[in-house]
Order: sequence, then C-alpha cells, then structure tokens
Amino acid sequence: MDDEQRVMPEGDIFVEDGTIKYVGEKGQYSYPENVRVIEGKGKVALPGLINAHTHAAMTLFRGYADDLALQEWLETKIWPREAHLKPDDVYWGTLLATAEMIRGGTTTFADMYYYADEVAHAVVDSGIRASLCGVLLGILPTAAKDLKKAINFVEKWHDSEDSRITTMFGPHALYTCQPEHLKEVAKEARRLGVGIHIHLLETKNERDEILKLGGQEPFTILRESGLLDLPILAAHAVYLNQDEVELVRGLPFRPVHNPGSNMKLASGIAPIPDYLEAGISVAIGTDGAASNNNLDMFEEIRLTALLHKVNTTNPTVISAYQALEMATRGGALALGLENEIGQLREGMRADIILVDVKRSHLTPLYDVVAHLVYSARACDVTTTIVDGEILMDDGKLITLDEQLVMREATKQAENLMSR
Amino acid sequence: MDDEQRVMPEGDIFVEDGTIKYVGEKGQYSYPENVRVIEGKGKVALPGLINAHTHAAMTLFRGYADDLALQEWLETKIWPREAHLKPDDVYWGTLLATAEMIRGGTTTFADMYYYADEVAHAVVDSGIRASLCGVLLGILPTAAKDLKKAINFVEKWHDSEDSRITTMFGPHALYTCQPEHLKEVAKEARRLGVGIHIHLLETKNERDEILKLGGQEPFTILRESGLLDLPILAAHAVYLNQDEVELVRGLPFRPVHNPGSNMKLASGIAPIPDYLEAGISVAIGTDGAASNNNLDMFEEIRLTALLHKVNTTNPTVISAYQALEMATRGGALALGLENEIGQLREGMRADIILVDVKRSHLTPLYDVVAHLVYSARACDVTTTIVDGEILMDDGKLITLDEQLVMREATKQAENLMSR
Repeated sequence: MDDEQRVMPEGDIFVEDGTIKYVGEKGQYSYPENVRVIEGKGKVALPGLINAHTHAAMTLFRGYADDLALQEWLETKIWPREAHLKPDDVYWGTLLATAEMIRGGTTTFADMYYYADEVAHAVVDSGIRASLCGVLLGILPTAAKDLKKAINFVEKWHDSEDSRITTMFGPHALYTCQPEHLKEVAKEARRLGVGIHIHLLETKNERDEILKLGGQEPFTILRESGLLDLPILAAHAVYLNQDEVELVRGLPFRPVHNPGSNMKLASGIAPIPDYLEAGISVAIGTDGAASNNNLDMFEEIRLTALLHKVNTTNPTVISAYQALEMATRGGALALGLENEIGQLREGMRADIILVDVKRSHLTPLYDVVAHLVYSARACDVTTTIVDGEILMDDGKLITLDEQLVMREATKQAENLMSR
Repeated sequence: MDDEQRVMPEGDIFVEDGTIKYVGEKGQYSYPENVRVIEGKGKVALPGLINAHTHAAMTLFRGYADDLALQEWLETKIWPREAHLKPDDVYWGTLLATAEMIRGGTTTFADMYYYADEVAHAVVDSGIRASLCGVLLGILPTAAKDLKKAINFVEKWHDSEDSRITTMFGPHALYTCQPEHLKEVAKEARRLGVGIHIHLLETKNERDEILKLGGQEPFTILRESGLLDLPILAAHAVYLNQDEVELVRGLPFRPVHNPGSNMKLASGIAPIPDYLEAGISVAIGTDGAASNNNLDMFEEIRLTALLHKVNTTNPTVISAYQALEMATRGGALALGLENEIGQLREGMRADIILVDVKRSHLTPLYDVVAHLVYSARACDVTTTIVDGEILMDDGKLITLDEQLVMREATKQAENLMSR
C-alpha cells in the first residue's frame, strides 16, 4: 500500500524485533541463519487490516436484537442490558472479538467502550494492537469522575506493551456531551498528547439534538471547545454538509466509514466520495457486533466499494484499491499510527497477514487487489502477525484458546441477559 | 422455512432415495438399521440455497475488469472475450462455479449462458441441481437457428438426471429480442411446458432501448407476445414502475434480486420492499462472477437485508427471515420447483446444508436466523447434500477434484484471454 500501488508477484519479507527489516524482490536479501520461514506461496501478504471504529465487547449482543428502529433498539434492548454490564463481561466479550478479528486479518482496532481497563487486558492477552478509550457521557452526573478515570486510563495505558496499546479520549458524541465538558476533554487530550475518538453526525436527527443540548452547530462546538485542533477519529460522519467537508480538509480530522452498521440501522450513506475528492483520508470500521453483526473487515471493505457506486449511480466511484487503502493506510492515519502500521515498508511494525488465494472462489486470478476487495472472505486469511508475533498460524489461533474464549463469552452473555 | 417459521432446537432428518422422509423432533422416528448418520450437533440444517440468476461460466472473467462504466465494461472487456468462448471454457468455468457454490451451500442455480449443453454436462458431473437455458438474442441473424437449438436443448435436458436438471427458454432481454421473436419463444415454451428466464429492466436506460427496438412498452411486449401467461424468472427487475408491480401481482412472475451486481455496476436498487408489500415472491441471485465477483449467496442474502434498510431509511424493512426465505422458498418458486425444494419438509427432495455455528464470529447464539443472515459466511457451510447425495462432507468436496478443476479453469481462462 505505497504511493506507487505496487503489487509484487514474488517477494520476501524479513522481520526482526517486531520490525519489518526488508520487503522486496525474492532472494535479494541475506538473512541470518536459523530464522523461522513462513512459506507464502499461493498467498498474498498485505498489511494487517485496521478496524477503525468498534465496541469490541458488544460481541456479547451479537444477534440479540435486529430489524428494529434505532431508538427502540437502543432504548428497549441495548441500553437496559448495557446498564448491567460488569467488568468480566467486557473482558470476555473483547477477547471473543479479538479471536474473530485475528481470524479475519484485523491486526489493529480502535475501541470505545465501558470498563476500558478490561478491554486493555484482553488486548494484552490476545496480542492484537489497539487504540483504546472509555466512554465519556458529559450529560451524566458522573461526568467529572469519569473524565478523571479517563485521564488515569491514558496515563496508565498510552504507549504501553511496546506501543501495541495507544489511547485516546472518547467523548461519546456531541449530543451526549455539553460544550463545557468537551472543553475539559480537549484540554486534557492536549496536555497528554492523545487524540479524540467520537461519534459524529451518525443519524439525520443528530444535528437537531446537538443544537438542543448546546445551542450551537456541531462544528462551532468542535472549534470553540478546542477539539478541532486535535487529531479526531470521527466515527460514522454521515451527515457533514459541503461546508463542513470543506472546513475539515487539511485538518487531522479522520472520518471512519461504517457501511454495514449504517445500512443495518438505516442511518444513511456517508459522503465518502466527497471526502476522497476533497483529499480527506477515510478509514473503515465495523462498529460493534450488535449492529453489524460481525467484525469482518473484508465485508466492510467490499460494502465500501459497492455502496457508493450504486448510491452515486457511478460504477467508477471508489476503486478496489481505494477501498483497500482505507482499511490499511487510512486506518493507520485515523489512529495516528501512520509511521508504524498500514503499509509493508522497511522500518514499520510487522503487522502482516497472509491471504490464501488458491481457492475456488478466488480462481482464476487476474488482479490481486480486485480479488481481495470483491471476492475474498475473512476466512481466507491463514496467518496473522502483529508486532512480529504470530497470532494465527495456518488457521490456528496461537495466543488464545478459542474454545475456552467462546465458552466463557457465552457464559457471560447468558449471565448478562439474566441480570 | 415453513409458514410457521419454525426453528427446531434439536431435530432429526431422515433421507431415503433422495427424498426427505422425516423431519421433526429428535428420537421420534425409527430408522432402518445401517443408515449413514451425519452428526449435526452445533450445526444448523437448512434447505440448500438457491442462486436464482447467474451465468456460472463467467467465473472465468472473475476480476478480469472492474470499476468500469457498464457500457465500457461490456463493450471493451466482456463481449470481445465472450466472442472467443469455446465449449471447453464453458464446461470448466461452470465446473469451477459449481465447486464454489457447493462449498457455499448453494444446491441449485438458474443459469443463462452460451453452450448450455456444456453447462448441463458440468451439472451432471458435479451433482448440483440446476435450471438451465442458453442465450437467445433475437436481433442476431442466427436467431432462428438458435431458437431451434434451444428447443433441442429443452427436449434433451428438461427433467433429466432424475429431474435434477430442468430447463427454460432464455430470451436475453427485451432490448435484444424483437417482439416477433419473443412470440415464437413464448409459443415454444408453452408447447414444451417450460418457463422463461429473462433479464428485465436492469438499468435505467433499458426502457428507452426497448421502445427504440420494438416501439412498445416492456409490459405491452410481454403481454402481446404471450410471455406474461408463462412462468417468468425476471432477473434484476430494477425499474418496474408502480403500475407494473400492480400488473404482475398474482401472475407467475418472479423477480430475482441481484444486489451485489446491481451495486457494483451501479445499475440501481430494485423495489424489493414494494414487491413484498404486493405479495410478489422474490428470489435472490449472484449474477455472473464478472460483476459480483463471487457466487456467494450468504453475501447476497445479507446485502438484500441491508441495502433496502438504508435505501428506505427504515431499519425494519426486509427482516432476516424474509431475506433467508427469498434465497430458499423464493428461489424454488422462481424455478417452478416449489414442490421439490426450498424447504425441509417430508416428501421434498433432500437438498440440505449444514452450517457450523460453533465459531467465534457466530458466538454467542441468540437467534439462528439472524446469525445466518447477518453474521455467517459461505465458508461456515460444512456439508452440502443435493438429491440425497453428499456433495461436500465436512468441508471436503466429494464429487469434484477441486484442485484439478481450479487448474483446468485457470488454463482455460489463460487460453481464452490470449485468443
């Protein structure tokens, strides 16, 4: 995923200390002796996929409530259950999510959820990479205490585990956080040198709700609170108008597209072609498994490439390459990790996946990128490497006891539903 | 997939002579001795999926040309290559398609393609079920000869292979067949007792093209030619207006939805919720692999459930169950096989698939139907049975040498591209 959009028919990659030391033509590099060799014949090596917006532990709600209107879904199903969440639920729910993501070639995810310490523990145990934050709901009476916890979380976890874990602040949304609260959050984020992960203009009504709460337009709030000077991971970003698109170009403002969730909840279609046209880097996320209902980045990449074609009635909109770029380099930019991940390049962290293309649904093979975007599936990934560590080897998870994780997560889900 | 939408937590299915003899509660039926038992614990048994519109041999063009405008794609890429097709290409391309479909739980497909005899041979060899027709292009000078061939094809293959193969007539579309030609086709179809497989109003310009060719509105042509009295499998059916939807209710007119292809080619979004509202049974198809780029019915089912929610901004439109019904009972109706397949019911043909739901991306499990539609993948199918014959057993293809098929199809594709 470099500027030349190179596809190398046969190559070697050499990894040492979690870093890519060589990537290039086959047989051109002299390796030390006794290195472990992973044979990639018949497979495509590419940078691990980056799921730039999810709520991993919501795997526990997968398929719990579907085909409902958004407010009914939230108010009668999701929120009442989330009110009963315990730390163990979040740990096991997140661990289940990491199993699914590692299987599907996702090497990094950006998460916003309750009990973020438990999310971090699951990330530590699974070996995956993540950018984490808790949920700040400024309108709650506990807002000041929650912000304090969030500060502690950043201080404890940012750049930990050899930088495998980074953090952000997670003000939930502009309709759940008043302008004054956001000012506090921006101040702390600036002081600690981390970015902002926020839901932004996901639904059609959201602008009105924001006006009702704070009396100001969304981007007035973002500017006056100081948030707009910070790196912003803007989840969904469906209802920005043309002026707002113009305003954010050139800023470290990164929209994250969640096509599966936006389609399922009927939220709307984000103006992704407009972002690209304006030179704004876009990332891709799955959102939580409650509104998706999986964490399959191959599916989201494909939806990204398909949805905007039919929506604009232009089959040349969002090429296969652009969609794949959003899920790799675009994700890295959204997480502020563009110098670490998102490309196979010397000096970058070794987050690498292998996709088996010797399969009937990937035959014949004219164009690797077209196959990855339009034909491949999460289950075609055979090997997942994060920070030089092999997390999945020939289809077998190495860091996780998958059966145990599935059993425990199921148990937690049953408990949660009976609380 | 019965009228009660029953999901049985634990059940037995007994198959004899390719027929379902029992389906019901576990342990209630006394089997003969020495039957072969397939253990289904942790798996979901459901009727095999029905791909109601494809051009199977177009697997040879998978990923050959993407992200192009429809006319450029057809005129500069697909048609020039199709002009060089030979019978062997179609045989191996179709065999490759059957491998992919059997793997993905598709037990029946409706095909329209050149060298239909070769398609039939591939169906015979793979053991899958199919409704086949060649391509009738009335505007070609060879039209009369081609119709004769099509008659021979129906006479040779209809209801052959223990009824595993049925046939239709395949007038390509109203913009490629004049009204007089369609009258001939309708007469022969009525005489031979078979239905019609046709592309109908796939793109926005098509109505104008039809008017230009025949001087009449599409449904005037269909009525006056006699086609509208016959069972019609209407592929795509994107641009029917409200009057036309009203006109076809009650007729054996079956729209086949191809969401992946319609999105990728930016053709438009078919009015599926209107069809359902009017009580019109809808089926689902993948279209050819050139415009999809796979034959994955799980993906098409999911797209069907997602696309119309966002398009109508109504998250309750097309439930998971409705989408699954379209891919089973709906497909059976479109192929005129509603008494043979599409349900697990005593007396029906034994077309059954098993889906493994003990996987991390399908955990926890609240609702089997939601999982099949929103979370599952083609590769979760472990067992595929057609007409009582096991075509895939625990992930292994039984009737096909998959490596050989992939190798031969690749060779044919290379030859085809160099012709």
